[in-house]
Amino acid sequence: MGKAIFIRNAAQLITIGGSSCAPLVKEAMSELGIIENGSLWVEEGIIQAVGKDEEIVGKFSDRLALAEIVDATGKLVTPGLVDPHTHLVFAGSRENEFDMRLKGLSYMEIMNAGGGIHATTKRTKKATYEELLHESFERLNQFLLHGVTTVEAKSGYGMEWETERKQLEVAKLLNIKHPIDVVSTFMGAHAIPKEYKDQPDGFVELLVKEMIPKVAELRLAEFNDVFCEQGVFTPEQSRRILEAGKAYGLTPKIHADEIEPYQGAELAAETGALSADHLLKASENGLKAMAEKGVVGVLLPGTAYFLMTEPANGRKVVDLGVPVALATDCNPGSSPTVSLPFIMNLACLQMGLTPAEVITAATINAAHAIGRASQIGSLEPGKKGDVTIFNVENYMKLQYLYGMNHIDTVIKNGRVVVKGGRLVEKLSLS
Amino acid sequence: MGKAIFIRNAAQLITIGGSSCAPLVKEAMSELGIIENGSLWVEEGIIQAVGKDEEIVGKFSDRLALAEIVDATGKLVTPGLVDPHTHLVFAGSRENEFDMRLKGLSYMEIMNAGGGIHATTKRTKKATYEELLHESFERLNQFLLHGVTTVEAKSGYGMEWETERKQLEVAKLLNIKHPIDVVSTFMGAHAIPKEYKDQPDGFVELLVKEMIPKVAELRLAEFNDVFCEQGVFTPEQSRRILEAGKAYGLTPKIHADEIEPYQGAELAAETGALSADHLLKASENGLKAMAEKGVVGVLLPGTAYFLMTEPANGRKVVDLGVPVALATDCNPGSSPTVSLPFIMNLACLQMGLTPAEVITAATINAAHAIGRASQIGSLEPGKKGDVTIFNVENYMKLQYLYGMNHIDTVIKNGRVVVKGGRLVEKLSLS
Ligand SMILES: [Zn+2]
Ligand SMILES: [Zn+2]
Repeated sequence: MGKAIFIRNAAQLITIGGSSCAPLVKEAMSELGIIENGSLWVEEGIIQAVGKDEEIVGKFSDRLALAEIVDATGKLVTPGLVDPHTHLVFAGSRENEFDMRLKGLSYMEIMNAGGGIHATTKRTKKATYEELLHESFERLNQFLLHGVTTVEAKSGYGMEWETERKQLEVAKLLNIKHPIDVVSTFMGAHAIPKEYKDQPDGFVELLVKEMIPKVAELRLAEFNDVFCEQGVFTPEQSRRILEAGKAYGLTPKIHADEIEPYQGAELAAETGALSADHLLKASENGLKAMAEKGVVGVLLPGTAYFLMTEPANGRKVVDLGVPVALATDCNPGSSPTVSLPFIMNLACLQMGLTPAEVITAATINAAHAIGRASQIGSLEPGKKGDVTIFNVENYMKLQYLYGMNHIDTVIKNGRVVVKGGRLVEKLSLS
Repeated sequence: MGKAIFIRNAAQLITIGGSSCAPLVKEAMSELGIIENGSLWVEEGIIQAVGKDEEIVGKFSDRLALAEIVDATGKLVTPGLVDPHTHLVFAGSRENEFDMRLKGLSYMEIMNAGGGIHATTKRTKKATYEELLHESFERLNQFLLHGVTTVEAKSGYGMEWETERKQLEVAKLLNIKHPIDVVSTFMGAHAIPKEYKDQPDGFVELLVKEMIPKVAELRLAEFNDVFCEQGVFTPEQSRRILEAGKAYGLTPKIHADEIEPYQGAELAAETGALSADHLLKASENGLKAMAEKGVVGVLLPGTAYFLMTEPANGRKVVDLGVPVALATDCNPGSSPTVSLPFIMNLACLQMGLTPAEVITAATINAAHAIGRASQIGSLEPGKKGDVTIFNVENYMKLQYLYGMNHIDTVIKNGRVVVKGGRLVEKLSLS
């Protein structure tokens, strides 16, 4: 944190200033607040000044020699990217299922071969605290290499107390040990465990009466999420789970209308959720209700890409006035990626968002989706020194030159952590 | 070239051996010839031996100390990737058109704003030899960082002799100056120049009587390509152009059936083309004719992705017995990328190819598509020392962990050129 950092002379510096109070909607999503030949002074981990290079030079002329200079000539500078929907803490990978799927095997055949969410649950349950910590730490390194400086992380690969707790404690420790800030969400309501298959309300009871109170008591999470979907949690069960969380101070989030229209968007507006995520099959009324209440719509085009399905109609969601954010949905079953920049590209090419909109969606609106907009998501004095620098001259080119990782430099809490596309120092737990 | 390179102990070493005589089709596309704990000895730029680590150690025990060791433990080793369809040599970028398109502007509005192929033609015409060389050289550096060790390069941004010649001479010089091998294709028949709009046969005449003979005389290309499409070159004109090339020793290639069904695949089989590319609307009869004649089908899923259209039915093309290759189609209008690994991922997720098939399509079949299968495209003694190493344990994971660049090391002609995902030395012209 010590040394000042002076990021100089960006071809385009995107501030997205003045938008910390409410997430951006409609045309405002395209107002990037671009400064050409833009510079940025960061000190004590905090952004001190943003402006034209000559302004910043003038302001800090007596201290230029003390600062670490980051030359951004010809480059694009944006707020550090924020990923507001991940299932960060899990064990193992499932590429064999992916291969089976592409070979034409059915969902049931893959399940019978030991696949599906329960494969990850089993491995996550078995993994030691340390194994889980190590694996997730490495994943965070990869996030950093893709320009992400804050991630939300959901539990939900236990669905019984000990494993849920383990996931949340690992996330908490990662937040301390890794440069990336990790924001925790309890998602015990990720699926119905096998043993509750015939009495799902018993599991809801367990969540509401036991797990949620313990999560709150141990301060293991800020948010409470539920997979509201046909065959998983009904809208009524979801409402009960979300309301129980609210009573304990956990803000609702919801996996809404991914596979079938199921009143998820409506429920998000009704319960005062901070975000409703997925939204592939959300009803127009539900989306309008979200727009009215300012519920952030977190779109996950990577999941549709990986599952080979139609993505949400992002263009329509934006046009209806929902504040849209983008996330990786990083998880081993339906979205094994950490590349938020690639998700932004998918949002352009598969959802019809514009290159300007996707920047807003991956920065300030994503920050709003996890209640951090006063600290991150834009480049303004007083905010955290979280900055991402891309090796392209303008924000259009970031999407135009598709399929490539353009990350050049990442600054987290006022410290250069990625340089020339590589970690500055080997980040490890020990 | 001097020092021996010993690549050791790959988690999976993919040889794709014994397939230099004919491109692979159907089930054979999935026979990767995987060696676990595989190692590879390269010397004098040529692969000397491939096998289990202990075999290679035994064979070269007296010379181990002399070799540069590349530790591939836990990694995936494949033949250097081959990109058989690019428009490598061009000037400028067109991200503003891309942005306009996503903002909903029509094709005509974009054309009226100075967009389209003629924008690139104009800039390429104006660019000096040196400018074109520099820009394309940098592009080749990016190809290398994405694991590509050989590219095909088409002319076609001139459509008049001086600029076509400039593009081909730049490609020829790049082949000498850059580690990547560049294979040249003459594509004067890329579009109808404005001045021939009302008499396209006059332009065909010019190609056939003047340009093609000069290309052959100056030995500027091996292949002769034509954009056979409604409103561009008719099948009859295309046949005439391709036959004229053959008479001068230029092997036919063809941009076939991209936008409308137009007998392109049939023409490829009839003229003995080495490849027919695009094939989005190819007829079943045309594909069967290609399969019968062994014409390689070069699929370009990136172009469909970037243009937001349905890609070719790659699954069907493979199942009909066409030998399939994959390419970036790198060009500033419809596919501004160099990431062949991402193209492979698109082929899985948007065309239904399997993780095994896309490896074959980007190596040995791609080598066949440019007449280089006896030298590259597989890891066998006697072939060029072109090797790509990915930071994943198996070929399935290469596709499963989507949206990320997994390149770790690239060896070209027996020299390590990329290490830890970065160029070993700054490659530049001077
Ligand atoms: Zn999720
Ligand atoms: Zn082309």
